[in-house]
Amino acid sequence: MTQTNRQIVLAARPEGEPKTSDFNLVEGVARQPEAGEVLCRTIYLSLDPYMRGRMSAAKSYVEPVEVGEVMGAGVVGEVVNSSFDGLNRGDLVVGLGGWQEYFTVPGSSVRKLDLDRDSASTALGVLGMPGMTAYVGLKNIGKPQPGETVVVAAASGAVGSVVGQIAMIQGARAVGIAGSAEKCRFVVDELGFDDCINHTDPDFEEKLRQACPDGIDVYFENVGGPVFKAVLRLLNPFARVPVCGVIAHYNDTALPDGPDWTSLILRSALVKRLTIRGFLVFDYADQEAEAIEQLSQWISEGRLKYREDFVSGLEAAPQAFIGLLKGKNFGKLVVKVSS
Amino acid sequence: MTQTNRQIVLAARPEGEPKTSDFNLVEGVARQPEAGEVLCRTIYLSLDPYMRGRMSAAKSYVEPVEVGEVMGAGVVGEVVNSSFDGLNRGDLVVGLGGWQEYFTVPGSSVRKLDLDRDSASTALGVLGMPGMTAYVGLKNIGKPQPGETVVVAAASGAVGSVVGQIAMIQGARAVGIAGSAEKCRFVVDELGFDDCINHTDPDFEEKLRQACPDGIDVYFENVGGPVFKAVLRLLNPFARVPVCGVIAHYNDTALPDGPDWTSLILRSALVKRLTIRGFLVFDYADQEAEAIEQLSQWISEGRLKYREDFVSGLEAAPQAFIGLLKGKNFGKLVVKVSS
Repeated sequence: MTQTNRQIVLAARPEGEPKTSDFNLVEGVARQPEAGEVLCRTIYLSLDPYMRGRMSAAKSYVEPVEVGEVMGAGVVGEVVNSSFDGLNRGDLVVGLGGWQEYFTVPGSSVRKLDLDRDSASTALGVLGMPGMTAYVGLKNIGKPQPGETVVVAAASGAVGSVVGQIAMIQGARAVGIAGSAEKCRFVVDELGFDDCINHTDPDFEEKLRQACPDGIDVYFENVGGPVFKAVLRLLNPFARVPVCGVIAHYNDTALPDGPDWTSLILRSALVKRLTIRGFLVFDYADQEAEAIEQLSQWISEGRLKYREDFVSGLEAAPQAFIGLLKGKNFGKLVVKVSS
Repeated sequence: MTQTNRQIVLAARPEGEPKTSDFNLVEGVARQPEAGEVLCRTIYLSLDPYMRGRMSAAKSYVEPVEVGEVMGAGVVGEVVNSSFDGLNRGDLVVGLGGWQEYFTVPGSSVRKLDLDRDSASTALGVLGMPGMTAYVGLKNIGKPQPGETVVVAAASGAVGSVVGQIAMIQGARAVGIAGSAEKCRFVVDELGFDDCINHTDPDFEEKLRQACPDGIDVYFENVGGPVFKAVLRLLNPFARVPVCGVIAHYNDTALPDGPDWTSLILRSALVKRLTIRGFLVFDYADQEAEAIEQLSQWISEGRLKYREDFVSGLEAAPQAFIGLLKGKNFGKLVVKVSS
């Protein structure tokens, strides 16, 4: 049996903001597994901001996707044909499947899920890479202490929502930043953050200051831009800044105009003895089991909530991804590729 | 007996680069010690870049010096009158004496030196705050590993010279940056650095790149400015950047013109998983005894060399300090106030 495999390939390297014409939908045939491999049908496809970096030619911490190549992505899939001991037809797995309807990979490269079909998408969000990013960034760098103030932007998103809730579980105050009044209400009312400030508000800086009367001890950086600058002034001595993303800059084609804040950043680092430290979730692969166990427990206890934003059909992925970089999603963005 | 005490007070807050008219030489009378105090005659006065910060009104990690107040400074002094058990007339001490010929302070606030009179000035340099700054910055943040490349600017200066030599003692390569060919020769020929690049050279960036063929693992930041930017591009994954000063910016009156490197700094921190961390030597006061013992041992073994740049007379301090901010000194700058 051969399966038609629709795929989305990179048609051109985006200049600045990606356009739908930077992607092509093509049809191929799913490759049957060789020894040790599995063929899977994609159920859920994860769209995440880091993917913008892979569309550019510059080498980053991973190789760029080549033009004509299928876009990479974490996915949840169902095994349809297995030549790998330990995985059987019908098993649900999470792995690097890419923007396509079927994928054939080494069985050792995927993780079998013990989630049911209804909650399997969480393996791409709160119980996947974004949730783990929040967990390891706080555990290893942010280290929130009881009574401290933790600020995170994109607070209704996949990473930010988990950051704030873990901070609160650990006894800190959580102040979110989000891009609309509706998102801010969700962050406070549903997730329980102590406060959430809309960064599109003209009084954003002043409102953030009021929301952090004792300053900021941990700023979990995932946006950059004006939010970083507003936070910088409010950081307390010995504050920690785990840097996990700078979504505000992923479409930049050149450095922004001045003034140049370099000296202020260094001077603030010195005077306040800041720790600004970048990290990638896969630097902490040895903490994956611990993270997933802990996050699962918090979910089962009702202490960790999450929101998902589904779009339907592989062909919807490019437009959804373009929207993600502008904050148009509300919760973890997932493409439902098949049922 | 009353001693005339010449003092240098802050006459005006400098706008940008300090001028000699920002300082006044005044005459007072040395105050006799009360119970627990010592009266000391200043022998050596330390001039250090951090003092520029104290001349500005903005609160930093220490309170600013008020206009009309004596400038603060670490000094080596000789006890001339003691009402403190454990210190006697003739003892040499190091403490916060300020820019003046005599100072009266609690005996508990000074440290008795077991250095002879000829080498007592080292208590302000290699065996004082600058040497300790190098030691604790590398020990706690830089953590150079054998075979790694450590870069430090102001490499012939009080801190930089010690940074590079400790790095080499610990098995790393040391590459210095300095402001003249003569300083660079000293750094390589006398201090034994693997290389030293003149930052006034038009090919500075390219030469730095050639001097660091395996990239940079530790950048001990004490200058900021274009040197930081040149280094940023060469930093390796997981590089550490202890931030101990930004002398290039101490006279800034506004943020420099653009472009704005903020996003590039954050993005580099993320992609390279950098640790950028500010520190002050007094955050590590509990490591002072260890540092001085270790640095003393290295000096006695001939593995740690230093250079001092003496100027004579209290009245020379303002001009010498102004020159310090422009890199006119060559080695640790010390004012010989009395013999």
